[in-house]
Amino acid sequence: MIPEIITLAEAMEAKLISCRRDLHKYAESGWFEMRTSSLIARRLKDLGYEVLVGCDVCLDEARMGVPEEEKLEAHYQKVLTQGADPEFVEATRGGHTGVIGILRCGEGPTVAMRFDIDALGVVEATDEGHRPAKEGFGSVNPGMMHACGHDGHATIGLGVAEVLMAIRQQLAGTVKLIFQPSEEGVRGAKSIVEKGHLDGVDYLLASHVTASAGLEAVPVYPGASGSLATCKYDVTFKGLAAHAGGSPHLGKNALVAAANAVMNLYAISRHGGGATRLNVGTLVAGSGRNVIADEAKMEIELRGETTELNAYMVEKAERILKASAEMYDCEYSLRLMGAAESQVSDEALCLRFRDVLASYGMPVPEKLILRAGGSEDVSYMMNRVQEQGGQATFMRLVTDMAAGAHNRRFDFDEKVLVNGVKAFCMLTADLMKKPVL
Amino acid sequence: MIPEIITLAEAMEAKLISCRRDLHKYAESGWFEMRTSSLIARRLKDLGYEVLVGCDVCLDEARMGVPEEEKLEAHYQKVLTQGADPEFVEATRGGHTGVIGILRCGEGPTVAMRFDIDALGVVEATDEGHRPAKEGFGSVNPGMMHACGHDGHATIGLGVAEVLMAIRQQLAGTVKLIFQPSEEGVRGAKSIVEKGHLDGVDYLLASHVTASAGLEAVPVYPGASGSLATCKYDVTFKGLAAHAGGSPHLGKNALVAAANAVMNLYAISRHGGGATRLNVGTLVAGSGRNVIADEAKMEIELRGETTELNAYMVEKAERILKASAEMYDCEYSLRLMGAAESQVSDEALCLRFRDVLASYGMPVPEKLILRAGGSEDVSYMMNRVQEQGGQATFMRLVTDMAAGAHNRRFDFDEKVLVNGVKAFCMLTADLMKKPVL
Amino acid sequence: MIPEIITLAEAMEAKLISCRRDLHKYAESGWFEMRTSSLIARRLKDLGYEVLVGCDVCLDEARMGVPEEEKLEAHYQKVLTQGADPEFVEATRGGHTGVIGILRCGEGPTVAMRFDIDALGVVEATDEGHRPAKEGFGSVNPGMMHACGHDGHATIGLGVAEVLMAIRQQLAGTVKLIFQPSEEGVRGAKSIVEKGHLDGVDYLLASHVTASAGLEAVPVYPGASGSLATCKYDVTFKGLAAHAGGSPHLGKNALVAAANAVMNLYAISRHGGGATRLNVGTLVAGSGRNVIADEAKMEIELRGETTELNAYMVEKAERILKASAEMYDCEYSLRLMGAAESQVSDEALCLRFRDVLASYGMPVPEKLILRAGGSEDVSYMMNRVQEQGGQATFMRLVTDMAAGAHNRRFDFDEKVLVNGVKAFCMLTADLMKKPVL
Amino acid sequence: MIPEIITLAEAMEAKLISCRRDLHKYAESGWFEMRTSSLIARRLKDLGYEVLVGCDVCLDEARMGVPEEEKLEAHYQKVLTQGADPEFVEATRGGHTGVIGILRCGEGPTVAMRFDIDALGVVEATDEGHRPAKEGFGSVNPGMMHACGHDGHATIGLGVAEVLMAIRQQLAGTVKLIFQPSEEGVRGAKSIVEKGHLDGVDYLLASHVTASAGLEAVPVYPGASGSLATCKYDVTFKGLAAHAGGSPHLGKNALVAAANAVMNLYAISRHGGGATRLNVGTLVAGSGRNVIADEAKMEIELRGETTELNAYMVEKAERILKASAEMYDCEYSLRLMGAAESQVSDEALCLRFRDVLASYGMPVPEKLILRAGGSEDVSYMMNRVQEQGGQATFMRLVTDMAAGAHNRRFDFDEKVLVNGVKAFCMLTADLMKKPVL
Repeated sequence: MIPEIITLAEAMEAKLISCRRDLHKYAESGWFEMRTSSLIARRLKDLGYEVLVGCDVCLDEARMGVPEEEKLEAHYQKVLTQGADPEFVEATRGGHTGVIGILRCGEGPTVAMRFDIDALGVVEATDEGHRPAKEGFGSVNPGMMHACGHDGHATIGLGVAEVLMAIRQQLAGTVKLIFQPSEEGVRGAKSIVEKGHLDGVDYLLASHVTASAGLEAVPVYPGASGSLATCKYDVTFKGLAAHAGGSPHLGKNALVAAANAVMNLYAISRHGGGATRLNVGTLVAGSGRNVIADEAKMEIELRGETTELNAYMVEKAERILKASAEMYDCEYSLRLMGAAESQVSDEALCLRFRDVLASYGMPVPEKLILRAGGSEDVSYMMNRVQEQGGQATFMRLVTDMAAGAHNRRFDFDEKVLVNGVKAFCMLTADLMKKPVL
Repeated sequence: MIPEIITLAEAMEAKLISCRRDLHKYAESGWFEMRTSSLIARRLKDLGYEVLVGCDVCLDEARMGVPEEEKLEAHYQKVLTQGADPEFVEATRGGHTGVIGILRCGEGPTVAMRFDIDALGVVEATDEGHRPAKEGFGSVNPGMMHACGHDGHATIGLGVAEVLMAIRQQLAGTVKLIFQPSEEGVRGAKSIVEKGHLDGVDYLLASHVTASAGLEAVPVYPGASGSLATCKYDVTFKGLAAHAGGSPHLGKNALVAAANAVMNLYAISRHGGGATRLNVGTLVAGSGRNVIADEAKMEIELRGETTELNAYMVEKAERILKASAEMYDCEYSLRLMGAAESQVSDEALCLRFRDVLASYGMPVPEKLILRAGGSEDVSYMMNRVQEQGGQATFMRLVTDMAAGAHNRRFDFDEKVLVNGVKAFCMLTADLMKKPVL
Repeated sequence: MIPEIITLAEAMEAKLISCRRDLHKYAESGWFEMRTSSLIARRLKDLGYEVLVGCDVCLDEARMGVPEEEKLEAHYQKVLTQGADPEFVEATRGGHTGVIGILRCGEGPTVAMRFDIDALGVVEATDEGHRPAKEGFGSVNPGMMHACGHDGHATIGLGVAEVLMAIRQQLAGTVKLIFQPSEEGVRGAKSIVEKGHLDGVDYLLASHVTASAGLEAVPVYPGASGSLATCKYDVTFKGLAAHAGGSPHLGKNALVAAANAVMNLYAISRHGGGATRLNVGTLVAGSGRNVIADEAKMEIELRGETTELNAYMVEKAERILKASAEMYDCEYSLRLMGAAESQVSDEALCLRFRDVLASYGMPVPEKLILRAGGSEDVSYMMNRVQEQGGQATFMRLVTDMAAGAHNRRFDFDEKVLVNGVKAFCMLTADLMKKPVL
Repeated sequence: MIPEIITLAEAMEAKLISCRRDLHKYAESGWFEMRTSSLIARRLKDLGYEVLVGCDVCLDEARMGVPEEEKLEAHYQKVLTQGADPEFVEATRGGHTGVIGILRCGEGPTVAMRFDIDALGVVEATDEGHRPAKEGFGSVNPGMMHACGHDGHATIGLGVAEVLMAIRQQLAGTVKLIFQPSEEGVRGAKSIVEKGHLDGVDYLLASHVTASAGLEAVPVYPGASGSLATCKYDVTFKGLAAHAGGSPHLGKNALVAAANAVMNLYAISRHGGGATRLNVGTLVAGSGRNVIADEAKMEIELRGETTELNAYMVEKAERILKASAEMYDCEYSLRLMGAAESQVSDEALCLRFRDVLASYGMPVPEKLILRAGGSEDVSYMMNRVQEQGGQATFMRLVTDMAAGAHNRRFDFDEKVLVNGVKAFCMLTADLMKKPVL
């Protein structure tokens, strides 16, 4: 136990709030987190961390769902005027966002922590009833909003960085702080794993803010399992246009191919082994009322309670998409836009964590969360660590919320920031505690 | 003009009626016409015709929709007790039905005539309101009924045989009387064409009885065009059974594959070039309520206003069936059960025919029939003759009917028999008339 | 503890085997169990039980999926020659099968036991590799086979009846033995509940034989939960026939209505609250290849992890069937052919049962079975008892099997018979044990 | 015969070409023809015609497919700077386009002529290979292009106005020149008919430029029949959004409702009475990948060889759309965006026209055009005139074309302008010729 953790965390509350509000105001969605990354890198370097940025963070070709080059460049030009850090922002150009900070404290385990930093493609509410609008920290980037709390996550990460640096003499091992881009759409984590940053990690800690409703009245849940494995695809069918009145038989109808795919995708058999999901979220097809549609585009997602169940859905969906295209003599293409695995927080680590929290006097819950729902690409990191014999946990930071995640009126109680800093540091201090000589 | 044709035809009316009623009573559906064929062969031989029966009529492997061997054999055993001709019935065993009679009258054109002889899979009405029942010539073969008038067609053919034999001295050329099996389901004609019997034919005459409603009040229309090209298929999907509650994901659902095929078959694009048709007439799938269906069978038919339009439908249907099977990881098979082409009666022959009829004092119509509808496999014969430079016509014999074709209460006015004999003989006599020396 | 239970049960092994084989040989599927019921009633009466038969067992109009009257009558005539008991068989005529036996032992709780007695619509294997065939007790009723072990269940019930009668002096309360017809297709239990036979019952015990694979090596599991709620429907679409070539627009296509229903039924959205199932097991539609289909019939089943989830599926399915019919201007009808609720064995009763078994020296499992899968209409009985404050358990009798349930080669190790008798009697003796004075 | 028609028409060729190119350059699509209408009105008034503009032309509420108010207003503001006539443009504000010019020449029949004036929603080619681009008269209004020749039609109408005014002393009766807006999408004609402008008309003449390929080498076809009746609808399904991973069962999936509607719309049975068409040209649905889609929009069109066949398609389509919405508990709405009837040019008028053309020495075709294909809302005008006992013809003006209609490289040989003026005037002069005293 290192009691200064509590003192240090509580002392930085105002700074945390200010940081969170700055990130909220300059919200940046996935692969656009250029200003955000540059400021995180700046802060880590100033604190004394080794810092990795740009192409050193994510494996370039493993990034999923990267936006078009022009949009990335336009945003880059914009952040130059929004206070991005001049030293670090250059490295992020082209969507090379994300930061890793490393603190080496001699012999001992490597403890990695994941903080996701991206905003969502949501237009933020602007009325007075929405606190960020009222208090002047509503997003200035139209169509980008921190509606899932990652502004808080990133802020906690910086708070953790500061506390751990302050107590580094009492730690043994290596701290690795991973500020992950593009968690929304589950697009970024895999590219960090494939870059090798989770190799050799003994413990991985991650968290997400969560609404208090339905949970025990505690600030922190030491672990949650059960997020769904998923794959997100963009699907395109290409056919052939023809005049619908005069020569419909000459067309290759991509719209019908897509409609037929929709019916059959939803009809994929339920699996006896557990829950699966399928959604065709969007469908856009055709060019004019009297023309046989020559193109159709769909955004779909598949999910499974386990990675295997998700693979089942993917296999069936691919079969259906291929056959629907062939049925209407169309061509089709699939582009993977995001993916996550299922994950299980290590029970041993969770229980240890609970004991640690209790030892600091924090209230702890009776039960762990077994069915988290949703999907999280931190699963790639957790699974990589666990495959190597390490342990991982995905904790929950409980807070009141003004509206549900992904809602344009989302906001959270900023008290969670200090609690988050404490939780990460307490567990890290325990995992890295120096052996008694 | 050979005026005896009228005298001879009218003199045989009672015999024609008796013959028609005998055939009606012992109705035999496609490839079962064993008794019918044996009696036709007997009569032709007795009249002095060269006679072809059994495997000499249809090309064995070109017969379509042949029933199962056991059913054919059972019927064979039955007809031995129903008055089949002992000399000829043996050759029909196994479904080798149909008869060709040839009369050679020296140098001159070959005139072929087609008479179809099969009944339908219909259960005949048995109440007193149905004349065949009342007068004792209702079908004794359950589920087989002459509900399309082919009993009349066969009878007319025998009448024609007798008249032409009587006037053979006034004819130049060759008469070929083709008694075709299995016209229903358009299964038989192609096998006769492929056997070569239409090669070298200069004129082909065929006919069908037709209801008087909506037509001009004449006994005979000299030609009709516009019957639809068609293909009939039996389709089977084979999947894999699984328990629907416990492990539905292990199944390969042939029922869903078939249902999906149905939806897409009906959705085949209309063709800008003319009328098309598609029907899935029957669908039988599955083995039990709680089992993923491992088999589905469909009886489908495709049609087109022309042979090309039918081919368009066949190509699209095959693509859909294949893709539906692949979509559900099923196997599928297609079996062609019947086929016909479109046909056009030669205008020149029809006009000549009209003049011939008029020259005998018969009332003739002002217009030809251009959109016959339905499908007829005499089209294979007509097209083969026309391809070789010959001429063909598909005439209509007008009659009152008790109910529509294929109805279990179907019956026709037997006056049409004499008219039919006259019409065939008048045109044949004109086509084969001896050159004036 | 009443040690005679063990002695009595083991002494009757040969009799149990003989009884089971007799029932197996004269297998009777749901609502046909006329011989079976009459012999059970005979035996219960001879033992001294009060006996209810015929219309006193099931509420007439609550029986589901009752076969056609003629088939029931034909079977009735048949069993008169198969050794049915003359006194009791009359009451079963018309499908009024099932028997209840009551033994009153003074003040005390009412303990009901459910034994299902029906066979399945399966054609039994007849080769030597199948023991019933080899040893001469294969089913003599074609298409009816005890392929789910209910011959064993009924036999155990009669064994229990004998043992409990023998030890009745040591019991306090009322024994109610329910021999339920038509468990297959979940058709019978509800009608017994609605007749009121579960009212006032304090404990309900039921069981099913289960394959040993994957389970702990014990003879009896004291409880299993998690069978699926289900509804089984027969669906009929009625349309209008028309000639597919000539006037397809005049038809009302019941086959397409059904195919469309199939596609949409399978597409019913998965439910976030738990597992659901849907199957269209069979589909039969249409009358001929060239006729627009005027009728389609489907056998479907819906399931849910809970009764509420099943209700969700039913609501969605009804909406789809109605709209599919309206889309094609068809009429439709739904007939409920079977239904079951979900069930949960009372944990307290299961644990008590485990202790009882252990007290007799029987090996007991560490865990209960939580996800039984499948559907069982004993759920109606269990839920009724539990709603009244009673307790219920659905135990598992473990045995080796020659093939899976519902397979035509199904057979089980007859040692399970004695174990079953012991288990029911041990628990009953404990529940009805006389208070120490 | 009035030989000056030829002289007058040929003398104005340069003026016609100049006028056509001006209209081409300032192309205005349906209900936007504000500059076009104002200039036509100006010219007619200057020539001495009575002129109707604004709300006097189309019945306000019978206009179909009117664009949004803001777009109309923006275009209005724009045309004020593009040379619109100040006197007349005000009346067109808000999409009240179209002009009628009347010339009264005493007692005699009323001859109405229809000239359509709108451009299409096509982006015109801008390379040198496209003559309008090369010669500087490509459209300056992005996304609006005269790609169907209506610039020529309007020009011909103004030429006709000038010639008829010049020869008015030789005419008896009333000339009514109808410059119709919004023919594309068949949106405008009905509102002119419902305003009453065709009441009392004895003859209606209309025309369309047509490619020479496949036709006889003549400048004018005196009539064409067989354009298809049609209805165009915008369809909207409204459902309910829900999270696709967490609570898909709470959604009402408008995307699936639409996809299912698509499959069933294409499956509408072919009609035995003639050709029908159906197209779902566009489909746009859903808001995000992981959200159950709460809205879907489709642009569809239905067609029939006759007005009755089109009505059949409409009835079936409405049934399908309603049932698809109900199946997924969605709401739906249909908005009629355009409509046309089928039409038949009066044979008598066509033959008279042919004789008139021949009398002027123009080459004339042997046959009329019977199967025009496509859809034209002049059909409403023709049918109204014919219902009142009048006669109508829809002539074809033959010309070479650089590309097919509706193609962004469309252009035509401007020789057709003079031919068109001649044809309208020759026939009108004949219909209105003064009785010989």
